[in-house]
Amino acid sequence: MNFGLFTIHYSLFTEMQKYVIIAAGGIGARMKSPIPKQYLSVNDVPIIIHTINKFQFAIPGIKIVIVLPPDRINSWEQFCFENDFVFNQDICAGGETRFHSIKNGLESIHGHALVAIHDAVRPLITVALIQDIFKHAEANGNAVPAIKMDQTIRVLEDGKSKAVDRNNYRIIQTPQCFHADILRKAYQQDYDVSFTDDATVVERTGAVINLIEGDINNIKITTQQDMLVAETLIASGF
Amino acid sequence: MNFGLFTIHYSLFTEMQKYVIIAAGGIGARMKSPIPKQYLSVNDVPIIIHTINKFQFAIPGIKIVIVLPPDRINSWEQFCFENDFVFNQDICAGGETRFHSIKNGLESIHGHALVAIHDAVRPLITVALIQDIFKHAEANGNAVPAIKMDQTIRVLEDGKSKAVDRNNYRIIQTPQCFHADILRKAYQQDYDVSFTDDATVVERTGAVINLIEGDINNIKITTQQDMLVAETLIASGF
Repeated sequence: MNFGLFTIHYSLFTEMQKYVIIAAGGIGARMKSPIPKQYLSVNDVPIIIHTINKFQFAIPGIKIVIVLPPDRINSWEQFCFENDFVFNQDICAGGETRFHSIKNGLESIHGHALVAIHDAVRPLITVALIQDIFKHAEANGNAVPAIKMDQTIRVLEDGKSKAVDRNNYRIIQTPQCFHADILRKAYQQDYDVSFTDDATVVERTGAVINLIEGDINNIKITTQQDMLVAETLIASGF
Repeated sequence: MNFGLFTIHYSLFTEMQKYVIIAAGGIGARMKSPIPKQYLSVNDVPIIIHTINKFQFAIPGIKIVIVLPPDRINSWEQFCFENDFVFNQDICAGGETRFHSIKNGLESIHGHALVAIHDAVRPLITVALIQDIFKHAEANGNAVPAIKMDQTIRVLEDGKSKAVDRNNYRIIQTPQCFHADILRKAYQQDYDVSFTDDATVVERTGAVINLIEGDINNIKITTQQDMLVAETLIASGF
């Protein structure tokens, strides 16, 4: 009996096509920074390529959907061609916000599938964590990596601030992984400014988000400090 | 009339003795890590010395109280002697938790005073921010630096997690500065595990905490990543 259940489980896992949507900036992100960090190179390889390599290594046969600022698409295609970065990718134009960008990316995904959504500027994600997230999402509908908070935080209320117990909070990372049908339903909602990640969009449909243990090194490269940390970790073979 | 008020204000400011308690670890911290980061060197100078220098430069005549793990006091005194680190310091033995350590440090502080409490492992604090914090604390009873949160966070409730609006939260830093009498009263309370910083201890007495704008570079060096960032920033003359 147990063996039977295992067989069904395994069969579902192997049959679902796996995708990753790499969020590499929409119109808004493009306007804020003239040189988005994902195009900067570490060890002569752009950060976004480090990121893509991790997914290709973790999930052989994964399909890659890249959401780019519209005015970067031509140069990206040329860059891949000139540098022999040949891989199975769909390229989509980003929208005004992250929500609109991911919604565009979802149009490239068809049928019964597992979809991870990942920030291009998180190249330090590990192969093991990617595999773990897909496994949990396949079993539970979704999986979202989270780490504990080691800083003291306060909440603002009525013009004042008060202490909160940081043990009750988690810092959320990507990749966030979902069954495709759950994502499609979520992204039919109207946009809301509170949609800072995909878990928030999916949660608004009534789904319960499953947190799994993330990785403190899986940083989002947004500052010059972050670039420095990433360069050292990548150079040391991370 | 306005000029008169200004005079009184200025006179109070100049007459209050200013202190900083440098929290450099208690018994607990000593047990967790065999080589606490504050003793590691950047540019051949221990992190704790970088930190102390900032306060001496910001507030000439400031009195320095250092709270050390009890078994580090002898080697610290010897280190200062051998390296000509001569400054006006009181050395106190740390206790079981940060709360107990700061309580010990407070015993070195007498009379009407302004007391900043700072993590030894935040050497990147700027002179301008130290001065700003003392000025606000003198006027308002306390001042605590805080920065916005740029990560997505979730709160755990009833075995589940839910999205929260990060715009309502602040990450708290040090130095946190208080009138000495407010601190003394606060540290007469019984210890509580929620006392992760001094603002939390003071707030429990009913005081309102005044947040002021902190600095994203004022990081707490706890990981190897942090050491790397600190080394680069300090080497570039930060």
